Amino acid sequence: MKALDLINKKKNGETLSKEEIYFLINAFNAGDVPDYQMAALLMAIYFQGLNTKETTALTAALAESGEVLDFSFLGTAVADKHSSGGVGDKITLIMAPLVAAAGVPLAKISGRGLGFTGGTIDKLESIPGFSTQLPVKRFIELVQKNNLAIMAQTDKLTPAEGKLYALRDVTGTVENLSLIAASIMSKKIAAGADAILLDVKLGKGAFIQEREAAFQLAETMFRIGNEMGRQVVSVVTNMNQPLGFAVGNALEVKEALSVLSGEGPADLEQLSLLLGGYLLTLVDKVRNPDEGEQELARLLKSGAGLAKFKELVASQGGDTAYCDHPALFPSTKYRQKMTAPRAGYLREIHAGKIGQVAAMLGAGRFYKEQQIDPAAGIVLSHKVGDFVAEGETLACLHGNDKNIIEEALKGLNSAFAIGEERPEDLPLVYGVVPPFPC
Amino acid sequence: MKALDLINKKKNGETLSKEEIYFLINAFNAGDVPDYQMAALLMAIYFQGLNTKETTALTAALAESGEVLDFSFLGTAVADKHSSGGVGDKITLIMAPLVAAAGVPLAKISGRGLGFTGGTIDKLESIPGFSTQLPVKRFIELVQKNNLAIMAQTDKLTPAEGKLYALRDVTGTVENLSLIAASIMSKKIAAGADAILLDVKLGKGAFIQEREAAFQLAETMFRIGNEMGRQVVSVVTNMNQPLGFAVGNALEVKEALSVLSGEGPADLEQLSLLLGGYLLTLVDKVRNPDEGEQELARLLKSGAGLAKFKELVASQGGDTAYCDHPALFPSTKYRQKMTAPRAGYLREIHAGKIGQVAAMLGAGRFYKEQQIDPAAGIVLSHKVGDFVAEGETLACLHGNDKNIIEEALKGLNSAFAIGEERPEDLPLVYGVVPPFPC
Repeated sequence: MKALDLINKKKNGETLSKEEIYFLINAFNAGDVPDYQMAALLMAIYFQGLNTKETTALTAALAESGEVLDFSFLGTAVADKHSSGGVGDKITLIMAPLVAAAGVPLAKISGRGLGFTGGTIDKLESIPGFSTQLPVKRFIELVQKNNLAIMAQTDKLTPAEGKLYALRDVTGTVENLSLIAASIMSKKIAAGADAILLDVKLGKGAFIQEREAAFQLAETMFRIGNEMGRQVVSVVTNMNQPLGFAVGNALEVKEALSVLSGEGPADLEQLSLLLGGYLLTLVDKVRNPDEGEQELARLLKSGAGLAKFKELVASQGGDTAYCDHPALFPSTKYRQKMTAPRAGYLREIHAGKIGQVAAMLGAGRFYKEQQIDPAAGIVLSHKVGDFVAEGETLACLHGNDKNIIEEALKGLNSAFAIGEERPEDLPLVYGVVPPFPC
Repeated sequence: MKALDLINKKKNGETLSKEEIYFLINAFNAGDVPDYQMAALLMAIYFQGLNTKETTALTAALAESGEVLDFSFLGTAVADKHSSGGVGDKITLIMAPLVAAAGVPLAKISGRGLGFTGGTIDKLESIPGFSTQLPVKRFIELVQKNNLAIMAQTDKLTPAEGKLYALRDVTGTVENLSLIAASIMSKKIAAGADAILLDVKLGKGAFIQEREAAFQLAETMFRIGNEMGRQVVSVVTNMNQPLGFAVGNALEVKEALSVLSGEGPADLEQLSLLLGGYLLTLVDKVRNPDEGEQELARLLKSGAGLAKFKELVASQGGDTAYCDHPALFPSTKYRQKMTAPRAGYLREIHAGKIGQVAAMLGAGRFYKEQQIDPAAGIVLSHKVGDFVAEGETLACLHGNDKNIIEEALKGLNSAFAIGEERPEDLPLVYGVVPPFPC
């Protein structure tokens, strides 16, 4: 097999076989297919697409390019959850301990965020001592012992995916649904997941802003999982306004703790339970998502979720005192309030703009190696639909640089829209693939 | 400017500015834009195309990436000629000395062939002593002194084109008319040509086999030349059967010499005069192509063309005895005749197949570094439309390896089609862009 022939095949709109895709990924991973050939192939894929069979083969080839975790010795299905990324999305911090508390092993390998706010790993690292760099063996042990472990991506798993993503990033070939789906799913497969809940974010704070694209991605990932014998459900959720009120790493951990204490924002609690309910259904822990939701609500109320979160923190070296006393988290030097310029209904809180301003304040990254400021971010005071009086606080900016805060304040202005009429309620969920019961 | 932004721009179907194209080519040439980004861009260009302005900018950027020859001191227009490549195409060897004999300076920088038979450079090198590696200064001197010099491509001219072509070759991005046109035209521009005759080959022995594509390439190159203030004419010519009878390097030089001696095959003489006639018109040497053709016929008849060819050989170190006594050219160890399996009209002599078999015999290259055998090749006995008796010779294979000749003989079978009916005459020329007088 020659890479050039396969580039031409895809360029001409033909279908690549499973063997051809494995050859390409293995040779690329080994350095035998150079970056420039893979770049040409990626661009050809961008224009000609991949069908389900090809996307599944790509997923499998990427997954098998490194170590593949095997939890079969547990004798029970292992769950995983993935979000395509949103502003204020701390669902994992809430849902994962609840699902684990329900007796379902959840093994989560997570990325750092790039752009907007940090990823789950960055958020957890705002807890002093919390280690996300676990040896694989230790990760597996923790899943067995506690039903829960969360670690950062490692080069040992899906190395070809890492290499391919780095190349896509510099060649304009990131935004292809098949490539995105294969990239996400390969990591879930390599992490040993049997049941996968995919939270596809749609809206102004998500990388997908078109309904059709979101559902295509949701379906593509569902189909890949299906072809590979995994239980998968994709939920397309609203990412037009931030989830909850807090945007920023320590700020979001604190908000997640408040949800687990039964005192969190309603949208965050609701979506965490809803998504968790699907996951419990996938592993046959409950008969349907509603039942799953009720079960998780019970575990939240009983404090079992919070206890599981503390167990997670403790077993990965974190200081649990921060869970009991969130006030311990360091705060930024400056806090700046932003107030409503006039009275009216909040018609929009633009998640994308909020995310960018939070990143500006230090909560996110603009390039890969950038240090984030765990304390920085934005805390909103309202949700879309609330009525605000003139001069009422809309948001509080947390930052360590006065000049940047001034800039951020200006940037934040256009994130809010206030109007006379109360806007329609934003739905939390746009749809589920497949429609349950599947 | 960032390469990634420009990749995305082209990927999304937008137009790149002149500045952007210069930036890309210069940075690529300097190694600042890596191969993988250029590969992605090339594939995006393959799908989204380049308009005339973009193609012209690309041509200029490639031309200016190295030395650009300047013949303005001659005070007269310098001519050049390019063929997109065909089987048995030794037109340059005939036309160039005739045009030079007419008093028009012709400065030709030529490539080696890849695939099928050798290029003009390979053919000339079959003359012992003939040097195609001239210092640029010497090349210019010879054009001034003799109105004629032919040299091999040098790294000093259009280095970015060489680098880009090498990348296209391994990334499936060769077959794009804009890229092909820019590649060809950049070399003509850098070589200092004012008037350019483009022979676009169409048919079974050409890389273009669709009429529309040939005319598109002809037009694209014409338009680029026009935008750059050059006199250009593109002639789309027939490449379904080989030109003349000889295919192979020394074999073709001998046939060119026979044409220059007034004893060559009619199709070859006719097309050489016709194309040369256009070139004389472009430089205002004559009023129209017909007049040019007549002038060149006169020079052929008078022996001035042959004399000019010998002068070319002598001034580039070649042994002119070979021009006077073509029998001096070495022959191959074996010659194998191929005969007609039955009587009838020759309905097809498939130039592509003839070319491939000739290459097999040693007359062409399958990879870049391959040595060619100057003596190897095929000499046909007929043209399409001829009536042949059963057992009559169709072709003679010249080779130095008995086994390969046996293989070649088998391969050659399907190149000939013999039928009851006399086929329609093949036109020599399909069309001219622009239609003359322009």
